[in-house]
Parts: sequence; C-alpha cells; structure tokens
Amino acid sequence: MSSTDRIFNFSAGPAVLPEPVLAEAKQDLMSLPDVGMSVLEISHRSKAFDQILEQAEADLRELAGIGDDHHVLFLQGGASQQFAMVPMNLLEAGGVADYTLTGSWAKKAAAEAAKFGTVHVCASTESESFTRVPAPDELRLTPGAAYVHVTSNNTICGTEWPVLPSTGEAPLVVDASSDLLSRPIDVAATGLIYGGAQKNLGPAGVTLVIIRKDLAERGAETLPATLRYAVAAQHGSRYNTPPVFAIYLFGLVMRWLKDQGGLAAIETVNRRKAARLYDAIDGSAFYRGTAQPGSRSMMNVTFRLRDEGLEARFVQEASAAGLSGLKGHRSVGGQRASIYNAFPEAGVAALVDFMGEFERTHG
Amino acid sequence: MSSTDRIFNFSAGPAVLPEPVLAEAKQDLMSLPDVGMSVLEISHRSKAFDQILEQAEADLRELAGIGDDHHVLFLQGGASQQFAMVPMNLLEAGGVADYTLTGSWAKKAAAEAAKFGTVHVCASTESESFTRVPAPDELRLTPGAAYVHVTSNNTICGTEWPVLPSTGEAPLVVDASSDLLSRPIDVAATGLIYGGAQKNLGPAGVTLVIIRKDLAERGAETLPATLRYAVAAQHGSRYNTPPVFAIYLFGLVMRWLKDQGGLAAIETVNRRKAARLYDAIDGSAFYRGTAQPGSRSMMNVTFRLRDEGLEARFVQEASAAGLSGLKGHRSVGGQRASIYNAFPEAGVAALVDFMGEFERTHG
Repeated sequence: MSSTDRIFNFSAGPAVLPEPVLAEAKQDLMSLPDVGMSVLEISHRSKAFDQILEQAEADLRELAGIGDDHHVLFLQGGASQQFAMVPMNLLEAGGVADYTLTGSWAKKAAAEAAKFGTVHVCASTESESFTRVPAPDELRLTPGAAYVHVTSNNTICGTEWPVLPSTGEAPLVVDASSDLLSRPIDVAATGLIYGGAQKNLGPAGVTLVIIRKDLAERGAETLPATLRYAVAAQHGSRYNTPPVFAIYLFGLVMRWLKDQGGLAAIETVNRRKAARLYDAIDGSAFYRGTAQPGSRSMMNVTFRLRDEGLEARFVQEASAAGLSGLKGHRSVGGQRASIYNAFPEAGVAALVDFMGEFERTHG
Repeated sequence: MSSTDRIFNFSAGPAVLPEPVLAEAKQDLMSLPDVGMSVLEISHRSKAFDQILEQAEADLRELAGIGDDHHVLFLQGGASQQFAMVPMNLLEAGGVADYTLTGSWAKKAAAEAAKFGTVHVCASTESESFTRVPAPDELRLTPGAAYVHVTSNNTICGTEWPVLPSTGEAPLVVDASSDLLSRPIDVAATGLIYGGAQKNLGPAGVTLVIIRKDLAERGAETLPATLRYAVAAQHGSRYNTPPVFAIYLFGLVMRWLKDQGGLAAIETVNRRKAARLYDAIDGSAFYRGTAQPGSRSMMNVTFRLRDEGLEARFVQEASAAGLSGLKGHRSVGGQRASIYNAFPEAGVAALVDFMGEFERTHG
C-alpha cells in the first residue's frame, strides 16, 4: 500500500478526518506560508498562532451559534479529564449533581464526580443494557441540583438523545464528545458542553469546552490552575502551552464544516448516511440493530449478525475489503460502524454493498 | 515566502524540530505506509499505534538509560499540570515537600504544591534575580521530606544546574521541560522527571513523565483518574485517548536522536553551540550575558546589549535577517537565543555573524 492509498476508516475515535484538511496540513507541514516554520514549531504566543486560534474560535462560534454568554476553551486531557473538572469546578461542598446513566462513559463521568460530592442518578437505562436513552419524563431531577449531566451520544451501545432534555434552573452539562457539531445544538440552553476532538472536531489531543461565563467562575482558587475553567478563560486557553497543532487542525476542520454548508447541512448528510445503513440492517433478516428505534445514533451504528458465529469472519473479510474498524467495542461485541462528519458517503455505500454480498455468500 | 522556505527559529518553546522528522511526518501525513490512514486518524487501540508507542518508549529508554525501576508515561497538560500532579500524588497529608526556587517556573511549581500541603523553600536565588542556581551546599533539606523539587533548566533567566543535587533519602523530582535529553541524565538517581515535549522532545501536546515505580503507587484512589500516575502506568498511557500524533512525532524525534549518536553526542554539539554564542557575548564589550558563569544554560542563552536602547532594533533587524524569536521573556526583557537539540549549528553561526555585523554598524 502506498503512502497515498486510503481505506475506509470506521473507527469510533480517533476517527477519519476530511481529506482536504489532511491535504492542507500536509502541504504546509514543513513551513507555514509567510511564517517560515512548521505549525508544529510555532510559539503559542506568536501572531501566527493568535490568528489560528482566533479564526478557529470565530468559525466555531459561527457554526454552532455560540453567543457572548459562553466561553470557548481549548483544553487537554480529553473527556475523561472533564469528568473530574466538571464536578471540581461546579459541584460545591454539600451540593448534589444529577447524572443520567446511558452507557459506560456516562457511568465513568458519574464515578469521577462521586469523588468530589454527591451524585444522584436521575435516570438510567442500565437495566435495558443501555439500548436506549431515557424519555424526557423519566428524569427525576433533584431540586437545586448543581447541574444535570447528559452524554448526548453513546458510542458503545450506539444510542443518541434525539433531543437534549430540559433541566429547568439546573445547568445542563453535556458530554458531546461523539456527536458535537454533527447537528445544530442549542448552546444558549446549555451550561457546559465538552468533548474530545477526535471524533468530529479534529485529531486527538485537544478538548473543546463551551461554558457559560458565570459557571466558569465557580471553581475555587485552590484548584490546580490547569483544572480551573476561569484560568483558561482568563488566558484565552493559553495559561500554559496549548496543543498548538491539534488546535490548528481543529481550525481546518471548522473551515471544512463551513464549506459543507454548516451544521444543518452536515446533519442532512449524516441522517442520509445513517438511514442508508439502518435501512440495510432493518431490510435483512441476516442483520439486526442493537439500539432501540427512537434512540439510534447517527454517529455509531451498532448491529449484530443473527448468526453471531459469523461475526469474526464478517469483520475480517470487511477489513480485507478496505472497510476497517468495524469490530464492536470489546465490552459488548458485535459490529459498529462509526460514521462521523468526515466519514465519506462512498464508504457507507461500500459497507452496504459488502453487507449484501456477505449475506449472499454466507446467508 | 514559499511553503518550504524555513527561517532560524530561536523560540523558547514550542521550538524548532529536526527537519528529517518534519519531512517524514509530511510524507506520511495522508496515509501511513501499510495502514491506509493518517496517523492523525488511527485508533489509540490499533496495532499501528501500539508499535509507535512501544518503539518510542524503547528508544527513549535506550537513549536515557531508563531501567525497569521507572515507568515511562505519556500524559497531557504540560509541565504546568505536573506542578499539581506531583504534590497530588506524592505529598501525603502532613508531609513537607522541599522546593528550590530558581526562576518563574520553579515558583509556579511551588505555588501549585502549596495548594496541597506544606512547601519548604530549601534554596532560592530570587534575591539575585535568579541569575544563578544554588550551589549544592546551599540546600537546606527537610529531614523526611516527601520529595525535593528542582527545575533543571530555567528558560527565562538562562540558567541550568550543571549537576543535579543529591537529595539523600528524599526522591529528587525534576522539571526538565527545557533540557531533558540535551545531555545524559542519571535516571536511576531520580524519583520523577517530567517535561512538556515542546523544547527537545517533540511538539506541544504531550508531556513526558519518567517516574520510579514505587512513587507512582503513592497517589490516592480518590484522585481524578487522569491525574493519578498509577492509572496511567497501569494502562500503558492509554487510560483514555492519548495525543496520538504528538506521541508519533516524539517517536520520530527519538529516532533522530539515536541517529545523532545519542545523548553524549548531542551534548557535545549542544556545548559547542552554546560556547560559540557565549564566546561571542564575552568577547565583545557591546554585549553582556545575564546568567552567572557556572550556571549558564546550554539551552537558553540570555544576553543584553550594553546600550539597552538598541535592543528593540537588534531584535527587529535579526528577525528581518531570518533570525526569529530572539526577544527575551517579557518579564525580564533583553535577548534570548534558545538553541535546543534540533536547532542547527548553522543558525548559531548566522546569529554570531549577525551580532558582529550589528556591533560594527551600531557600536
């Protein structure tokens, strides 16, 4: 395989990036035009990086409709570090935080929060193996809760909140690691949205936080400086050296998203890609989806073969045909096709063709 | 300027990377050979990344002589996050940690530690504006201290410990962000060595920690998972998604260092580069060094013009001549030439020539 051949990458994350983004990064890797150094080498205090960061933030604000009430922060440590930063900053002594349990990642978020205060599980679908998300009327919110935490898309079980819940006075905190910017989002109605970049936003190594400005001030001054939202906000995400290259790539992805027509347009494409796959699954007795209709994810399409004994072969032959990363998460098995924003429609068509062919051969 | 023209980058960090590293990264940016995706897209659970991480660690262990008593961890958040992680993991309730104050970064490290326990300043050169590091016999160590913290190289004032101090029973903790792998280091004699990658090790976005295995176990289970050394060690730096691309670049830099002949060989080059600059400074009445001889840094050469009124012009004309990043840190002013491992000898020669020419024109 040459260094330009590319396969279809169904990985759950880190995941496929838009080819024009990679092409531009490649072209400028040795030296940014008019700068004379690689973006891997530029100072985070340089004018070149100021422009990169400011443009990335401006494009994100335009795409997602982020107003002046919210900070945009570029942090490190992934969603897993946010699992701790959220309660460290927002859960005051004696307070209660409401958590919705909709999968492994939601449980991890709640477990981290329990290190810092009282966690109340306001809804859980664990008894149904997380095959759906709760209906809005299932949430048992705590009056006066510090916040309500929701995982908007669950990569392992392939579920997604069709609409984020209303949480009244309590700020809504959303782990949107795996569906952020895949569809429009009402930022004004949320207190804090966070996500690792490595699904829809860019490469691994940068963590996006969109936080209401008053909430950012809640963290105590005794917190470690790198874990306090107020410090990052005050320093424009440059309290210390940020992940410069990952933010640059993030910026290129934002420009690509604008070129695609923005979030409403990308949602249309994402719905079409997901529908094509779910139709192939539902239209065959050979395959079956694992998430309940109404909770199905646009991003991670999980399915089984009726004959589970054939699944290892399915994944192996798919991989040999250039369809990589279809094995489901080790905790649940089965197959998973992750089809984030940058995943090409041609790849979905190729998978649907392969599924039909595999059924004809082995069905 | 075309996208392949490169200037001489004297930035203190993020800093220059070896050209062969950039060239290889560029060549494979769209698709890693035999993988079919960019390293920006590969899963951190993939075999391709297993190999990248394992090779990077093996090369580092060989270069620095790291034995089985120490873990090698790839983390995020930079040295600033280590300022907090070190005491969170190593400073037990009621304990005392000794800190040497040798510059702004050392003070920041001590200030973070004071959030978690008792900090004892066992030596400080602040009264001398940090123009030198303490002599070994100046350290007033606390019997039974949890650890002794040293900043091995001080980027702002241009000083460096010629030899790291002996700390007896107390583990030596070294912030080596700006001189790690610039010379051989006795890892066996240290408890913990940490550094952001963006000076000598790779791009911004990955933080290297070398920690004695027994020390890694000291952190309480109530710590956030991403901030506990034991968790990172147990999961081979993959508790959650690591900064894949930054670790890949780190690995390429390790291979380049081996190609240069290892740490003793690179130290010879670094000594030659620094001596050439210090000789130019000392050999002229027009310039003067700011660090005291005996404490001078091989990495960050700080100097003033006798006529400080000419300094803005010096930096401006140097920049116009393709010598970028020579302005000293805003807290101290003056000039600073950062000449890390990857900084080419030709760049040092060009600066020395420029200094001579500037003196002839303006002296």
